[in-house]
Amino acid sequence: MEKKCIGIDVGGTTVKIGIFEASGALLEKWEVPTRKEEGGKYILSDVAASIKEKLGQLKINLEGLAGAGLGVPGPVMPDGYVEVCVNLGWKDVNPKEELSPLLGGIPVFIGNDANVAALGEMWQGGGKGYSDIVMVTLGTGVGGGVIIDEKIIAGKHGLGGEIGHIHVRDEETEHCNCGGVGCLEQVASATGIAREAKRMMAAKADPSEMRKFGDGITAKDVLDCAKAGDKLAVEVMEIVGHYLGVALAQVALTVDPEAFVIGGGVSKAGQYIIDVIEKDYRKYTAISENKGILTLAKLGNDAGIYGAARLVLG
Amino acid sequence: MEKKCIGIDVGGTTVKIGIFEASGALLEKWEVPTRKEEGGKYILSDVAASIKEKLGQLKINLEGLAGAGLGVPGPVMPDGYVEVCVNLGWKDVNPKEELSPLLGGIPVFIGNDANVAALGEMWQGGGKGYSDIVMVTLGTGVGGGVIIDEKIIAGKHGLGGEIGHIHVRDEETEHCNCGGVGCLEQVASATGIAREAKRMMAAKADPSEMRKFGDGITAKDVLDCAKAGDKLAVEVMEIVGHYLGVALAQVALTVDPEAFVIGGGVSKAGQYIIDVIEKDYRKYTAISENKGILTLAKLGNDAGIYGAARLVLG
Repeated sequence: MEKKCIGIDVGGTTVKIGIFEASGALLEKWEVPTRKEEGGKYILSDVAASIKEKLGQLKINLEGLAGAGLGVPGPVMPDGYVEVCVNLGWKDVNPKEELSPLLGGIPVFIGNDANVAALGEMWQGGGKGYSDIVMVTLGTGVGGGVIIDEKIIAGKHGLGGEIGHIHVRDEETEHCNCGGVGCLEQVASATGIAREAKRMMAAKADPSEMRKFGDGITAKDVLDCAKAGDKLAVEVMEIVGHYLGVALAQVALTVDPEAFVIGGGVSKAGQYIIDVIEKDYRKYTAISENKGILTLAKLGNDAGIYGAARLVLG
Repeated sequence: MEKKCIGIDVGGTTVKIGIFEASGALLEKWEVPTRKEEGGKYILSDVAASIKEKLGQLKINLEGLAGAGLGVPGPVMPDGYVEVCVNLGWKDVNPKEELSPLLGGIPVFIGNDANVAALGEMWQGGGKGYSDIVMVTLGTGVGGGVIIDEKIIAGKHGLGGEIGHIHVRDEETEHCNCGGVGCLEQVASATGIAREAKRMMAAKADPSEMRKFGDGITAKDVLDCAKAGDKLAVEVMEIVGHYLGVALAQVALTVDPEAFVIGGGVSKAGQYIIDVIEKDYRKYTAISENKGILTLAKLGNDAGIYGAARLVLG
């Protein structure tokens, strides 16, 4: 019987865990709470205990595992070292070295959660069938992951795939959380889209369906209005699409993937968001007609456990 | 005795050829003219004949070669296919498959010349000691090459490392050769720097040493004036540095190399050009203090033969 892989996606509130066949079939998934107290020192032992319990139920022993993969919400150095992981309370830890002995010494692999999610989408999601993809997650922030030849480009300082912090807008004046200014995330995250809509409503007197949401407007409201043809909302999405198109074009001219996989809450707008991005993506890759396609992510919140399990397969 | 590698850099005027030890030592280098007539059909046979003649002189036989590498001025598909190579007259060719039998069946490898030059700089030039570098060549145009884990990221459509065509300037109105608008090359190539200087002189009435060069001003003139403290020339180089800094920051947040290696004619300005780029490169990678360094290329026009030979080593 082929060995199984464990995928672990450590989030700030819950840890998602999945058991996978090497073929990519998900056998079982579940969650455990993330215990952040005392510098997050219980997280990995909680995870290990929960995995062992589940394996017992499923009558799989540790020898039946090829290994486990771990996605964590922060930068990971090439040797697996995590300097700081604010959301978990971790400081100066090497989670893969800590987790392995708790799971009977099986090999443990680790990556940044956005990169790992990208690997998951390549394996069994919107990027299935491709070896080179770039994932862009449009959520509260903008995350990214670059996969070339079925491997994560994590970078030598953990900055690989930090697409949300690509500078795209010279005239931006507010600062991004990262300390920069004019980052893609400031305009293309869910937060950024809502902010852009508020700016647009303040700057223009035109009537708009968006006005009924007032300051509580969300990215979903903006997208719903734009899809319904609301002129001001369409203008907002053209701005968002411009900067996303510019950023993806830049990435295409750097690593030239087969596909850009668009995920996160904003991507629930479906083909509409692809169309919004595609116009300027094509415009700013004028050098060639042959370029990576834009497509939607498929695994939702499970991308992380899929990718973490895929880490085990090398 | 360890086998030797041949590096071949095919240019529009001459083909540069070098014989290397696997250690990276250059044993001999020479050039042959590029015969472009009849769709460039004589280029590879000229190269093969010249190599065999040189090997005879050096008393090295074909069995003493590990293989040959080829850098060509155009996009190369993953299987080595070249759809079109304007500068050579090539159309629908697979140069590595053609060259191998002309050299007794030794393995032949191929890559785009800018990518291959980047590999050369990683091997024995400004990027020596690193496995992950991005080379940026500031010449007549702006070329680039991305090397991750000692391998070229050529891309699935040959667009990997096309950094010169990254869109950086929304307010640009003229078109780039690539068909795009606002490309890095339009402002940061030698041609672009001269154009920017002319724009600046036309827009401002300030006195400047640059004015004595009139419309014939070159990038070197601008750099010389800027280094001497000429205010208008410094302003020009601040614009150039801004867009180069923005573009390299974007690339850092995509593939996060250990070093950016700056080459081409403009890089003869030395540390000055590094300083010009560094300010905004740091500003737009605010997310982390740890990032790739900026450094100068070292191999000049030999980067191509070094990189082509390095292709043989895998």
